[in-house]
Amino acid sequence: MSDVIYLDNAATTFPKPENVYNAMDEANRNYCVNAGRSSYKLAKKATEIIEDTKKLLLKLVNAKNSANVVFSPSVTISLNQILNGLDFVNNSTVYVSPYEHNAVARPLNLISKKNSINIRELPLNENTLEIDIERMKYMFAKEHPACVCSTFVSNVTGYILPIDEIFREAKKYNAVTVLDAAQAIGLIDINLEKLDIDFLAFAGHKTLYGPFGIAGFIDNSSIYLKEFIVGGTGSDSLNLDMPKNSPNKYEYASPNIVAIAGLKAALDYIDVDKIHSHERLLTDYLIKGLEDIKGIKIYLPHNLINHISIVSFVVDGYKSEDIGMILDEDFNIAVRTGYHCAPFIHKYLKDEFSLGTVRVGLSYFNSKEDVRNLINAINDILLI
Amino acid sequence: MSDVIYLDNAATTFPKPENVYNAMDEANRNYCVNAGRSSYKLAKKATEIIEDTKKLLLKLVNAKNSANVVFSPSVTISLNQILNGLDFVNNSTVYVSPYEHNAVARPLNLISKKNSINIRELPLNENTLEIDIERMKYMFAKEHPACVCSTFVSNVTGYILPIDEIFREAKKYNAVTVLDAAQAIGLIDINLEKLDIDFLAFAGHKTLYGPFGIAGFIDNSSIYLKEFIVGGTGSDSLNLDMPKNSPNKYEYASPNIVAIAGLKAALDYIDVDKIHSHERLLTDYLIKGLEDIKGIKIYLPHNLINHISIVSFVVDGYKSEDIGMILDEDFNIAVRTGYHCAPFIHKYLKDEFSLGTVRVGLSYFNSKEDVRNLINAINDILLI
Repeated sequence: MSDVIYLDNAATTFPKPENVYNAMDEANRNYCVNAGRSSYKLAKKATEIIEDTKKLLLKLVNAKNSANVVFSPSVTISLNQILNGLDFVNNSTVYVSPYEHNAVARPLNLISKKNSINIRELPLNENTLEIDIERMKYMFAKEHPACVCSTFVSNVTGYILPIDEIFREAKKYNAVTVLDAAQAIGLIDINLEKLDIDFLAFAGHKTLYGPFGIAGFIDNSSIYLKEFIVGGTGSDSLNLDMPKNSPNKYEYASPNIVAIAGLKAALDYIDVDKIHSHERLLTDYLIKGLEDIKGIKIYLPHNLINHISIVSFVVDGYKSEDIGMILDEDFNIAVRTGYHCAPFIHKYLKDEFSLGTVRVGLSYFNSKEDVRNLINAINDILLI
Repeated sequence: MSDVIYLDNAATTFPKPENVYNAMDEANRNYCVNAGRSSYKLAKKATEIIEDTKKLLLKLVNAKNSANVVFSPSVTISLNQILNGLDFVNNSTVYVSPYEHNAVARPLNLISKKNSINIRELPLNENTLEIDIERMKYMFAKEHPACVCSTFVSNVTGYILPIDEIFREAKKYNAVTVLDAAQAIGLIDINLEKLDIDFLAFAGHKTLYGPFGIAGFIDNSSIYLKEFIVGGTGSDSLNLDMPKNSPNKYEYASPNIVAIAGLKAALDYIDVDKIHSHERLLTDYLIKGLEDIKGIKIYLPHNLINHISIVSFVVDGYKSEDIGMILDEDFNIAVRTGYHCAPFIHKYLKDEFSLGTVRVGLSYFNSKEDVRNLINAINDILLI
């Protein structure tokens, strides 16, 4: 299956850089032990790698010295930890972008069953499919935000949300600001010094080109998150409470040193400018190619400067899953089809008639030829 | 560092079987994609591997057909999920063994701050360091258990708890029974057909000889666990609730296919009888060797048939962490020292004077020579 054209990179980037594979195998064979809990040399080496990886992450987003990286095994878990950790006053309002993933939407829905919080969507301009900042300001003024949660890049349309404006406005009301950077970190320059972000959640296995099993959030605030998932910390074992300080109070259980070693290698590899330029080129080429095909509807933000790497479309007369199946069976092209775990946005895309979209997720390892093959395949399908 | 004698296997078994490394590298390079969410060939292969791994796990514990494996990235997370998922009636009593790990103790402590539950320890005979079954029966009769949680093997002393009797008695009161099998599965024969267990939690990276990043629980009940950690499931995306049925309702986010492939290889490798016999031999040899040294106190259950693989001791005149440091620095032997994330048991061991124990955790990959080297090292230290 090595000749597959893999275009499901918004789910998981694949392949990874060669040094990621090597680092993981090396960690597995040489120091796959419990870091942070013991003082023997192998454990110290593991602990060092964790600290180095955290430093690389903080550097990547230009975090200030007071910021901490809190690791977890998945960004979904980190978002659950953040959202369940917040102490919502009764009747407070949480705003989410209409592009949120179920990693945000479902935890908030669950929280709203136990606490009386109001969940509101940031307003979208239905014509441009972009956030309507002016209407947002009006909504915030009318119903103050206690928390604002937004993804940086939509995992459905590739829309880059105006998070600087969203969070700047949110902070006028002292709202807690949560950024889901799962589809952005490593691909888009993030400068925490210039952004009003309290918590930045990231996944290792997507735009960071790292492995499954390592993710987390950057704790850029002094907000105290309530305990949520708790367990052994390898320290203060006789205490039934978690340690008091970030990041230790949020990190439980044995760290996955193999995945962390892989992430470290990925961070060594990543060059945001280079990746961004390459994916920009491929994205433009893909959009141009799809636009030239009759019977395709592409879901893009109006201003293409606010867009990258992910392209969703539907094909006249086809359910999206059928396009996915034909691309796989007849052309060996892997794309994702359906609703992409994003519950809110489809009422704007109006893509239910095709059971969601065909989604192409590009990566640094895709080539123009991959894109050309996809476009040719779609053309072939429509000629049948 | 390849000549290290690694005796911290109760934290993480290391090394792993060669086929685990190979399976992980192969998964990384060939099908490191999102399983269960897409229908292209690579995703289908990943999904198949997950299903096969679950079947091997169910077979290993002789589970009935109705049982499900619920994967998660760590056994701590699984235990949080189970304990937070239970619907405790006000003032109900949860019994835990005094050997519990903070992966059980801390979640219960946190739950007790929000719900009025009573947490009681199963009674221990201070002389034998074994559970006092008769007193337990009396306690259950006086204060009925709503839930009973026990580890199978103590991660501090290697004591094999009488879980068949504990859970049989618990079921007389219709209590929910939770087994923490992190230190037992793969090492001790587990037959779910003969045990009254509702939830069996397991770790991949300990006695199963698999990697970090994959763990879970076997759902052997029809008990409905409330939603706790929620997120994308790759299905029913427009629904803000999780799917209704086990295991899907408990599994969120992208499965770690690389870790699962590693666990599958480990399960292919494991032969419980062979591993058990080997570790039995090494354990006996270790205990004999330590008993011959003056100035060593070993913490063992009275009946050594109820014991395996983990040996905790203290050395006269030394803090345990100093022994750990000397073993590492002068002998290149890695052991774990301290309280081992087990908050309750130390009041019985009375090991606070040495800041906890020196813990030796054996694995199938240790040899008699490893044990002999440790014993010689301890002798040398005491001769200084």
